[in-house]
Amino acid sequence: MLVVMKAQATPEEIQVVCDYIEHLGFRAHPLPGAQRTAIGITGNQGEVERGNLEELPGVAEVIRVSKPYKLASRDVKQEDTIVRFQGTDAAIGGHELAIIAGPCSIESREQAFAIAEQVAAGGAQFFRGGAYKPRTSPYAFQGLGLDALKIMAEIRDKFGLRIVTEALDNDTLELVAEWADVMQIGARNMQNFSLLKQAGRLRKPVLIKRGLSATLEEFLMAAEYVMSEGNYQVILCERGVRTFSDHARNTLDLSVVPAIKRVSHLPILVDPSHGTGRRDSVLPMARAAVACGADGIIVEVHHQPENALSDGPQSIYPAQFEKMMGEIEKIAPVVGRTLPRGIHVGVSAE
Amino acid sequence: MLVVMKAQATPEEIQVVCDYIEHLGFRAHPLPGAQRTAIGITGNQGEVERGNLEELPGVAEVIRVSKPYKLASRDVKQEDTIVRFQGTDAAIGGHELAIIAGPCSIESREQAFAIAEQVAAGGAQFFRGGAYKPRTSPYAFQGLGLDALKIMAEIRDKFGLRIVTEALDNDTLELVAEWADVMQIGARNMQNFSLLKQAGRLRKPVLIKRGLSATLEEFLMAAEYVMSEGNYQVILCERGVRTFSDHARNTLDLSVVPAIKRVSHLPILVDPSHGTGRRDSVLPMARAAVACGADGIIVEVHHQPENALSDGPQSIYPAQFEKMMGEIEKIAPVVGRTLPRGIHVGVSAE
Amino acid sequence: MLVVMKAQATPEEIQVVCDYIEHLGFRAHPLPGAQRTAIGITGNQGEVERGNLEELPGVAEVIRVSKPYKLASRDVKQEDTIVRFQGTDAAIGGHELAIIAGPCSIESREQAFAIAEQVAAGGAQFFRGGAYKPRTSPYAFQGLGLDALKIMAEIRDKFGLRIVTEALDNDTLELVAEWADVMQIGARNMQNFSLLKQAGRLRKPVLIKRGLSATLEEFLMAAEYVMSEGNYQVILCERGVRTFSDHARNTLDLSVVPAIKRVSHLPILVDPSHGTGRRDSVLPMARAAVACGADGIIVEVHHQPENALSDGPQSIYPAQFEKMMGEIEKIAPVVGRTLPRGIHVGVSAE
Amino acid sequence: MLVVMKAQATPEEIQVVCDYIEHLGFRAHPLPGAQRTAIGITGNQGEVERGNLEELPGVAEVIRVSKPYKLASRDVKQEDTIVRFQGTDAAIGGHELAIIAGPCSIESREQAFAIAEQVAAGGAQFFRGGAYKPRTSPYAFQGLGLDALKIMAEIRDKFGLRIVTEALDNDTLELVAEWADVMQIGARNMQNFSLLKQAGRLRKPVLIKRGLSATLEEFLMAAEYVMSEGNYQVILCERGVRTFSDHARNTLDLSVVPAIKRVSHLPILVDPSHGTGRRDSVLPMARAAVACGADGIIVEVHHQPENALSDGPQSIYPAQFEKMMGEIEKIAPVVGRTLPRGIHVGVSAE
Repeated sequence: MLVVMKAQATPEEIQVVCDYIEHLGFRAHPLPGAQRTAIGITGNQGEVERGNLEELPGVAEVIRVSKPYKLASRDVKQEDTIVRFQGTDAAIGGHELAIIAGPCSIESREQAFAIAEQVAAGGAQFFRGGAYKPRTSPYAFQGLGLDALKIMAEIRDKFGLRIVTEALDNDTLELVAEWADVMQIGARNMQNFSLLKQAGRLRKPVLIKRGLSATLEEFLMAAEYVMSEGNYQVILCERGVRTFSDHARNTLDLSVVPAIKRVSHLPILVDPSHGTGRRDSVLPMARAAVACGADGIIVEVHHQPENALSDGPQSIYPAQFEKMMGEIEKIAPVVGRTLPRGIHVGVSAE
Repeated sequence: MLVVMKAQATPEEIQVVCDYIEHLGFRAHPLPGAQRTAIGITGNQGEVERGNLEELPGVAEVIRVSKPYKLASRDVKQEDTIVRFQGTDAAIGGHELAIIAGPCSIESREQAFAIAEQVAAGGAQFFRGGAYKPRTSPYAFQGLGLDALKIMAEIRDKFGLRIVTEALDNDTLELVAEWADVMQIGARNMQNFSLLKQAGRLRKPVLIKRGLSATLEEFLMAAEYVMSEGNYQVILCERGVRTFSDHARNTLDLSVVPAIKRVSHLPILVDPSHGTGRRDSVLPMARAAVACGADGIIVEVHHQPENALSDGPQSIYPAQFEKMMGEIEKIAPVVGRTLPRGIHVGVSAE
Repeated sequence: MLVVMKAQATPEEIQVVCDYIEHLGFRAHPLPGAQRTAIGITGNQGEVERGNLEELPGVAEVIRVSKPYKLASRDVKQEDTIVRFQGTDAAIGGHELAIIAGPCSIESREQAFAIAEQVAAGGAQFFRGGAYKPRTSPYAFQGLGLDALKIMAEIRDKFGLRIVTEALDNDTLELVAEWADVMQIGARNMQNFSLLKQAGRLRKPVLIKRGLSATLEEFLMAAEYVMSEGNYQVILCERGVRTFSDHARNTLDLSVVPAIKRVSHLPILVDPSHGTGRRDSVLPMARAAVACGADGIIVEVHHQPENALSDGPQSIYPAQFEKMMGEIEKIAPVVGRTLPRGIHVGVSAE
Repeated sequence: MLVVMKAQATPEEIQVVCDYIEHLGFRAHPLPGAQRTAIGITGNQGEVERGNLEELPGVAEVIRVSKPYKLASRDVKQEDTIVRFQGTDAAIGGHELAIIAGPCSIESREQAFAIAEQVAAGGAQFFRGGAYKPRTSPYAFQGLGLDALKIMAEIRDKFGLRIVTEALDNDTLELVAEWADVMQIGARNMQNFSLLKQAGRLRKPVLIKRGLSATLEEFLMAAEYVMSEGNYQVILCERGVRTFSDHARNTLDLSVVPAIKRVSHLPILVDPSHGTGRRDSVLPMARAAVACGADGIIVEVHHQPENALSDGPQSIYPAQFEKMMGEIEKIAPVVGRTLPRGIHVGVSAE
């Protein structure tokens, strides 16, 4: 159920409606829009009686949301969600494309700083790096943990990059929330509902990667788990699905981008690194992602990928990152976007 | 690496080898077999120098395990693993088929007892029931939690059934370990590595369901995560993979059963309920599972499936459960198995 | 549309209805059942006006068939279709399981006869062998063509086996119809609509293998193409679908067997050889196929699979064929079936 | 095997090598390149003895091609293949993007002319339209056949568009070869090896659509079938593969574009209409296709899609086609391409 407030409704009137919803034993989710505020109602089994609600001051109408995802649905919020970061110009979902770059894993302070310097120079606003790594084998490198989080905090201070890193469970999620700017939930945890709920209770932006065999509806329901707890700063990310394909590690499903845009107000990024698993496919698919309307790119960059402890074959070189930025800068205007303000990538005419 | 002890090696000699391995900074996993004990070594990067090991008393040979899964591999342990339950005849992986039956969710004490009585009468040794439910929607019934665990503990006392139930995260896993007999890790958590490790530290049998798009190798690596922590009581379960299929909720991949048997010593069950999502396909696929060599069946049974809070359409009626038992009893001898001792299902000649 | 005749309707009354349908410009498909005859109507766009039809003598009712497949639907014909072979006891779809066995390709007269002798002794009623091979590579062995057809005709004469072999196009289909007993249309041609129509015009039984990514509906629509031309002797065959699986060449989708049985009257076989691509999985999956209700098995047998020109790794040895027959003989009664009359396979107690 | 000729080898020397290869009982495929000619050898089982070949005048070296596809491999021909059309500037695979547009089916002369006029005005060089339709149902509209071919021949005369249309079998292929400019082999016939060989014997460009579950290797082997018969004018086309996806009819696998470019010299187009099955996804995916390096686009356009006899929901309006052309014109230079000479699409700056 959704309560749509009148354009001129006052904050007090909105509060009264929220209080009334909570008084009924449900949860109220005020979602401010450009024209008017909508208030999502969750926690109800079946329909909420709308009679009294419709008579409260400031209420325009009460409508039913038919999709299984409510708060993530464009029916509930027409305007695109823009995730902003206090004290910075960085944003995800706005007019400017969001560029997140960095190594698969933080391997050392030196490695991390070397790469951070280059992706910052290349125009990234966000730095990614694994502190806690979900590895298929228990015997593989599992990440530097808290040490990696601290290194990335230094990188934020030094280069002004916002930090994106993955959490594996409730304990590491709290550490990530403390030290980083975006809490990433990986593809293999996309339906770890306990972790999603915990991410909803922490008030930091959450980046959810699509599961290897997740449908669009399941993808949005993962977002809904976070949002149902009151955290509306959710960013989606396509990273390839699993098919019979023999030419790439995963099949990057770019058509999910326009599909998400149709039904949801949440921003969606694309990860061409995991999406293909091959360095020589990253740039073509990054260009394609921008061309089809993605809100940004998350890409693995390593200054020495041949020595990387993980994901070396899909990490691009800093020079390739620079080339990629030059290419997407030219494509961005076709879809009404730009690279971040002040960044004009100087790539030679080729 | 694997240290194979001589047949006549003494417990003291085995202990000396384990101590030496731990002294080198690795982890020793003694795995007793019918003829001789093997000791798996994990925690090493690359090869362990085998010179000194081979000279220790009682050591027959030191061999390299080339597969990514080590402790789960049949190279390390030739004999089938049989998971036993103290104080009972119930076992999984032995000559007798293991039958696990019960409702998707524990909905009430009455519902649970009604179903438990019927599946016990029908020949099940294990009772399944959801206390913590991984639901796609945050607004769907999430299970009765601890109350459900307590109800199932009563069922164990009353009917002598061993209890199998799912945990969603580290907190619920500890509760499940306390109250139940088998800790289930669901398909959506098959690569929740934090949960797998925690299951490895708790000393209870673990049932791991295959992920919706998990390869055989990933499936066994999930088992390896548990085993690498020292818990070798792992049971695998096929429950259908996700494909383009339009005639079933999932595609039950029965050919994984002989494939697992070739490369691993762990028992493997089949879940024809989630595997098909359709009541009228459960019996045919249960028969097929036994026929292709599965170690048992886990099946959803409900006395009033039309009223079930979850998975009603795939839950069979108690009368169908009885029929199923009669059918698989006849098929079991073809694959050298039987139904549990003392149970002779009385089904009419049809 | 479907015209259901009264139980006591005369052949003349049936003919009058058919003539009337054809007179309207449509096609009439009389389908005799145990109780009464139904007459399918195809060729119409939208609904046929039923008024006059319902008033014809002998007509019980005129009903609409809502599924996209009409003649293949159980709505049109309740009784299972049994495909019979004149002058023999062999049948597909009846009480007795149909067993089709033989090499992937006919490589020589000696090879074919050696294998035929052994599968006949083992209890097969049908011999399979490739004359025209659909090979992924244009440079691979393409089959002996007409010579192979002639060899198989000799095998029919000598061993009394009915011959099943694949056609690749309209030209080879005519030769197959002339020399063999069952025209096989392979998985890669399941939507070769021109070939399906041609198979419908030739009056020989047609075995259609499920395409690698065919849905149940597409599978039945392939049968419908054949039937819409007036040939109702159609046999379906599951042979594995393509998934991400790493442990088998294809994923054998046994749950399609009960699904087909629900909606169609056509017989369905299972091919565990192509379905798994591994010799050591063939017997387990053949047992499973019978257990879940398949009407029979089509299996590759070779006396020297290590020297086979194609599909060696998935061909079983004659001794394995004999073992398989012994196993399925014991499972058959559980699903109300038997092996063919007079064949009692003598397999030792193991 | 591949014979690489010296740069200065004469036509006579090339002919001598070809004759020698044919004399050995193999087939010679001279493939002229910018620098030198290579001669592919097919028809051999195992390696050809290279001794005598290497000593023939003009031969630089004899090398083994290790991939299963030979003539389609970039190992055999470094330069991109450009398919040209006599008497026109139209080409596929060159600097200019190839744009193929038109309705799913030719429904009438009026419909075809109305659409052709608009796509010609919008900048297409090629007109597509179905004469023979591969329909899942035998009861669906099957195309106008020869009448449609004649209508498209008129369209070529009037608008200067080259004609692309599908053939379903050997008979219709001959008609298509006679009346059209490009013979299309549809996704469902990608492994109809009889049809591929026949297309190889006819000397017209062939457009092969990727099968619904075809791997990259199988896709290239389909091309190899055509090429092995001596027809090297092969164009590949990605049109979506079948997955579990719920948000699109197929999953458009754009990452196959850079993968094909790595291993083959053949041009590859993208079909965003069948690839998504949704009108509102066609433009985003067309942009993405150009951005990732495709050689062109094949797209369904209909002036009245709501009345189309087939594929209405995925056909774009002429105004959308014009918009698409304006968008890809801006993206093309980023990947070193342009729209065809003389066409400058006038789309507002938006």
